[in-house]
Amino acid sequence: MRYSDYDIAGVLDQENAGATANDFLDDLDEVPIVEDASEIESADVLIIGISVMGGNFDSSWRDDVTTALERGWDVISGLHTFLNEDAEFRALAEENDCDIRDVRKPPDDLGVSDGAAADVDAEVILTVGTDCSIGKMTSTMELCGTAREMGYDAAVIPTGQTGIIVEGWGNPIDRVVSDFVAGAVEEMIVEKGSEHDYLFVEGQGSISHPSYSGVTCGILHGSMPDKLVLCHESNREAVHGFPDTPLPSPGAFGELYESLCDPVQPAKVVAGALNTSQIEDDRKARRAVEEYEAEIGSPATDPVRFSTRETVRTILES
Amino acid sequence: MRYSDYDIAGVLDQENAGATANDFLDDLDEVPIVEDASEIESADVLIIGISVMGGNFDSSWRDDVTTALERGWDVISGLHTFLNEDAEFRALAEENDCDIRDVRKPPDDLGVSDGAAADVDAEVILTVGTDCSIGKMTSTMELCGTAREMGYDAAVIPTGQTGIIVEGWGNPIDRVVSDFVAGAVEEMIVEKGSEHDYLFVEGQGSISHPSYSGVTCGILHGSMPDKLVLCHESNREAVHGFPDTPLPSPGAFGELYESLCDPVQPAKVVAGALNTSQIEDDRKARRAVEEYEAEIGSPATDPVRFSTRETVRTILES
Repeated sequence: MRYSDYDIAGVLDQENAGATANDFLDDLDEVPIVEDASEIESADVLIIGISVMGGNFDSSWRDDVTTALERGWDVISGLHTFLNEDAEFRALAEENDCDIRDVRKPPDDLGVSDGAAADVDAEVILTVGTDCSIGKMTSTMELCGTAREMGYDAAVIPTGQTGIIVEGWGNPIDRVVSDFVAGAVEEMIVEKGSEHDYLFVEGQGSISHPSYSGVTCGILHGSMPDKLVLCHESNREAVHGFPDTPLPSPGAFGELYESLCDPVQPAKVVAGALNTSQIEDDRKARRAVEEYEAEIGSPATDPVRFSTRETVRTILES
Repeated sequence: MRYSDYDIAGVLDQENAGATANDFLDDLDEVPIVEDASEIESADVLIIGISVMGGNFDSSWRDDVTTALERGWDVISGLHTFLNEDAEFRALAEENDCDIRDVRKPPDDLGVSDGAAADVDAEVILTVGTDCSIGKMTSTMELCGTAREMGYDAAVIPTGQTGIIVEGWGNPIDRVVSDFVAGAVEEMIVEKGSEHDYLFVEGQGSISHPSYSGVTCGILHGSMPDKLVLCHESNREAVHGFPDTPLPSPGAFGELYESLCDPVQPAKVVAGALNTSQIEDDRKARRAVEEYEAEIGSPATDPVRFSTRETVRTILES
């Protein structure tokens, strides 16, 4: 909702129906939250933007998809479950002349990387994280957006379903055959590397997430970054989905990412992005950012809450 | 050829036709190497065991596959290119009542890991490497075989096409959807963890291989090993497929693997396996093993050339 060009008619959320989007996030518009798709007066597209662990379709969403297709809306889904493979949805889409776009479905013609990302002219900046769901996509969008406002020729390399829906292109790296992960990232870097001066690559997961670290590592080596931005959420103490696994310190993460880059193409953490959305008070949030800066030894910001101009300058001119 | 139960009638190799298998590896039988499948008197199965970078089918092999199917042999392929999707091969297989088994094709019902591998009763030993194609599969087979001979209840967890062809089961992890890599390994660990006391997991690639590190990292975290065996090839100086990328020292690799295990489930390198096949002289090979032991700070052996009993004892009783 923050970064796409869509006009959002409503948000489907069975638990929070009646509220508006800006009740939850100040910087969003007053978009109504409704219980089901039939309450939306008119729309062109239903976006399944929810990102659940495993990425499977939940049967409680079936009525909304059916309603959307019956009303002639296209459906864009970021799930691992491909809606185009659902016979009922497929038939409804054909009947009502709608498109179902499964953006998590990668192209068929991928292969292994050959290191070509090292040779692109553009400088490559990768967001890496201490966990999943902490704001790597958001940080990438904010930093690249600010860089563009400041006059730099910068582009986002989308690697996940939300980034792809926002940017209108990209490759859902976590759905790619694992042998081709680095190759799929490299292909995007090479494609855009001659068109822009700076590429902000959307990172995924975390290098120590028990379930997703393979995707993270493949993006790290496939994109051959020149610089890293370390993303973290204040107060996050356990690994997402693994409440008994404590999160290492952000400083330890920085060292781990740099050690992994070293043998392939050295890259340093040059800045940090701290998600302080759990902290209400602005002054406390600022203090959390300062503590984070001390911990990782680099300048940082909360790219949603505070200015990103200084951070962008640090990143691009360091 | 070393580890499977097949009687091998011949080896197809256009470059080395006329020689025998034991001209290249002492411990193999005197199996004839021939130029094409028509020279083999009789067989039941053609195995495409070659492992090329990218894993694609080479058109120069087409005649041999055709010959095999026409003669009623089954075909087992470990390639990324699925031979079952080749209309001509499919038709020939049906006509001659043969099976084409694409062992690189993973099952459809995989999902993300949930950390269940940490709870299995069996002790999990993972082979990790400084590069790909240095002997992780071989080391896994040798160490597990010796453990069994010594009376331990041990099993191999095959994660690559060759291991799968040898063991007759397994999951080709580098072909799995990247988000499900850890989940696919975990599933095998959980399945076999209650049946055996020790699981030797076949590792893949290397944590700093530009193309394959994602697969390596996913196996590392998905298998949640208790112990690591670091595999290396003497004289290997550059990364496989990347002649300009120097290989870090084995000691640095040990530290990197241990740092990556730490946040998920701590595991130490307890032994090393050095592939000394590039060294002719036994004494020199022994010295290389000793230098490798000093470098990684653990006992080591060349599991093909020298005894593995001491190493197995070290691994299982440390």
